[in-house]
Amino acid sequence: MVRPRAAILLIGNELVRGDVADANGPLAARELRRAGVEVGSFHTAGDRVGEVEAIIRRSGENDHLVIVAGGLGPTDDDLTRIAAARAFGRELVRSPEAWEQIQQWFVQKGRIPVPGNERQAEFPEGSEWIENRQGTAPGFCYRDGETTYYFLPGVPREFRAMFVEDILPRIRREYSLPPPREMLTLKSFGLSEARVGTILSRLSESIPEVAVGTRFSFPEIWIDLEADAPGDLERADAWLRERMGEFIFGKGEDALESVVGKLLREKRIRLATAESCTGGLISHRITQVSGSSDYFERGVVAYSYQSKTELLGVDPGVIESHGAVSEPVARAMAEGIRARSGAGLGLGVTGIAGPTGGTVEKPVGLVCFGLASGDGTWTREERLFGDRAMIKHFSSEVGLDWIRRYLLNLGWGTSGRRGKGER
Amino acid sequence: MVRPRAAILLIGNELVRGDVADANGPLAARELRRAGVEVGSFHTAGDRVGEVEAIIRRSGENDHLVIVAGGLGPTDDDLTRIAAARAFGRELVRSPEAWEQIQQWFVQKGRIPVPGNERQAEFPEGSEWIENRQGTAPGFCYRDGETTYYFLPGVPREFRAMFVEDILPRIRREYSLPPPREMLTLKSFGLSEARVGTILSRLSESIPEVAVGTRFSFPEIWIDLEADAPGDLERADAWLRERMGEFIFGKGEDALESVVGKLLREKRIRLATAESCTGGLISHRITQVSGSSDYFERGVVAYSYQSKTELLGVDPGVIESHGAVSEPVARAMAEGIRARSGAGLGLGVTGIAGPTGGTVEKPVGLVCFGLASGDGTWTREERLFGDRAMIKHFSSEVGLDWIRRYLLNLGWGTSGRRGKGER
Repeated sequence: MVRPRAAILLIGNELVRGDVADANGPLAARELRRAGVEVGSFHTAGDRVGEVEAIIRRSGENDHLVIVAGGLGPTDDDLTRIAAARAFGRELVRSPEAWEQIQQWFVQKGRIPVPGNERQAEFPEGSEWIENRQGTAPGFCYRDGETTYYFLPGVPREFRAMFVEDILPRIRREYSLPPPREMLTLKSFGLSEARVGTILSRLSESIPEVAVGTRFSFPEIWIDLEADAPGDLERADAWLRERMGEFIFGKGEDALESVVGKLLREKRIRLATAESCTGGLISHRITQVSGSSDYFERGVVAYSYQSKTELLGVDPGVIESHGAVSEPVARAMAEGIRARSGAGLGLGVTGIAGPTGGTVEKPVGLVCFGLASGDGTWTREERLFGDRAMIKHFSSEVGLDWIRRYLLNLGWGTSGRRGKGER
Repeated sequence: MVRPRAAILLIGNELVRGDVADANGPLAARELRRAGVEVGSFHTAGDRVGEVEAIIRRSGENDHLVIVAGGLGPTDDDLTRIAAARAFGRELVRSPEAWEQIQQWFVQKGRIPVPGNERQAEFPEGSEWIENRQGTAPGFCYRDGETTYYFLPGVPREFRAMFVEDILPRIRREYSLPPPREMLTLKSFGLSEARVGTILSRLSESIPEVAVGTRFSFPEIWIDLEADAPGDLERADAWLRERMGEFIFGKGEDALESVVGKLLREKRIRLATAESCTGGLISHRITQVSGSSDYFERGVVAYSYQSKTELLGVDPGVIESHGAVSEPVARAMAEGIRARSGAGLGLGVTGIAGPTGGTVEKPVGLVCFGLASGDGTWTREERLFGDRAMIKHFSSEVGLDWIRRYLLNLGWGTSGRRGKGER
């Protein structure tokens, strides 16, 4: 069996103007790849007959499947069907079934079609009509030698429904595609991109049966593994966990906050947070997880000195002698929120998110963390980089990952310099 | 003067796999269009030398400018520079300046480069190095006959900085492009998409000199206006503000939280927040703005009943008789945080973010707000829709917009049903 190869064509002035980011391409690509179809490329063009005709022709030269999204609407700038007719050297012919369905759609909505709607039922001669249950723009399928073209509307809801419910099953049948390849995504935090790259190069040498890719979801690195045999994937998983196990916090749909939540739930430990520079981002992330009220007791965003003292009992003398951004204050915040909330675990974060407020001794990006537990309190200091939003996000990640590591009895594990630890 | 024409090439396995939706293409297209460059097409390919080489060659045939994003990282699957060298028939040569800059970047971060980083300084012979101030991947520029190619890293933050600060000014100079068309983006919240659409149709009839577009940035609607003459833009701005003035919260780079921050600063009022269902998102948004410590006093995320009582002084009897999600509790939260913090304004938010926890009487999406000020306390109830993340985000928007409206002496102004108000 030949593994079919597909191209995806995205048509619309709004796309090449940059007004809208396309969502149909990624959807189709993921689904096709899962079905065992190789996606070589996307091509995006505006609503111009010549340009659309050219990319249709060109795709036909290399690909078995060409998915075309957009330009099938009722307005004058919806020109995809004209471009298709030219590319195939065919006349446009009205499909009676398609026109019937469009009319029915209008009857159901109690509305009246305009002349443009009639044109929506015109396809290059020899095309097969594809029903659109969600809107007025029907799709069509055209075969030219070895290549099959599917033309679908660009409205994401309509595209998705037609592609997933109708086109994918057709493709699976036509090419007798085997079950989808085995896939696994591992999510890591704490190693540099270069370090992960080095490890993955060695993985590719050791287990060449597994295809490897990385995605950078700041500040996380996600590792995509793909293989024909489940056993190969398991071997790659084991190989990676041996080398970077503690830096891998989850897989698949896991988020760091959901992993932390699951551990807190399993260990029946409740968490409370005392945030300064992260401004509530840590509690926001924790509460993105449904059911987090079971283990998240409270959070405090102590932005002013006064609030650190009043809400957390931080000794003003400690702030005065060490500064608000210091390990002793992070310790007092963590211990204060733990004691006052009655939660088993208290996290304190104080830092300088910038862009202003930094000094030579305490630059922007300096962030101090405290973790208070029944076993004692630890503090650490990190020097993070980026703009304000990045430093906040990076800090929230360090804080959440530290909770994960504490609950799993792991060390700190940021890959760069380590802060000073104290018990 | 010839109007230059550009193609945009987007390189990355994660793109053709559909794992990531590209953001660089739309950014570059918008900016190029504003500068007077015509963008004909985007082409997206995976990290494969042959494919990338082919699209580089093909773009050179039709376009004056080719913007290439991605594939310049340190890992083995970053192959864009190899593909470029082949397309241009040149050797890869290491740029001493680029290598120097990469090494400096590592010294500054206190980290050590790996061999992959050294390859990042290699460009096709005859290329010009383009500095990346935000990361390790430098860009490069190559001229071939009538066509200029710009190769930039795919990390959106790095791409944006280099494209906007460096590449666009080069292109403007090289083609002596006229000043960009006048543009104005107005940001609105509270009117439905259909309502905004109706208003904008009328605007186009009244002032046809102004081109109008909309972008939906949940739950906000942004209105893009474009004209040759500044006077036309001013007329359109005035026309719209007359019809939807209170629903327009800002323009250009404004975010709702920065607008609120500016008002608080101007009026010298400090804010404190008491959040339940939003879980810290409101304080997170407020503290995204640099300098927010001047007007944001503290925030409390009172997730448990106990924390509502202890941190905010909410009467347990009120929770018992009305439920934790109720206007009386929102009132008590707002008044409690205001009284305890000494801030001039206290916001309380309690709701059901779902997907679990809803009942027939109090369904998922029910959110109650309280706003306590020196002039009294108001409460309101909203029924919002969406998944957990959407309800949290929508709630944070309603809360922030209410503060804006209070500070501007406006009414509530959500377009749908209004909640019950009480003084």
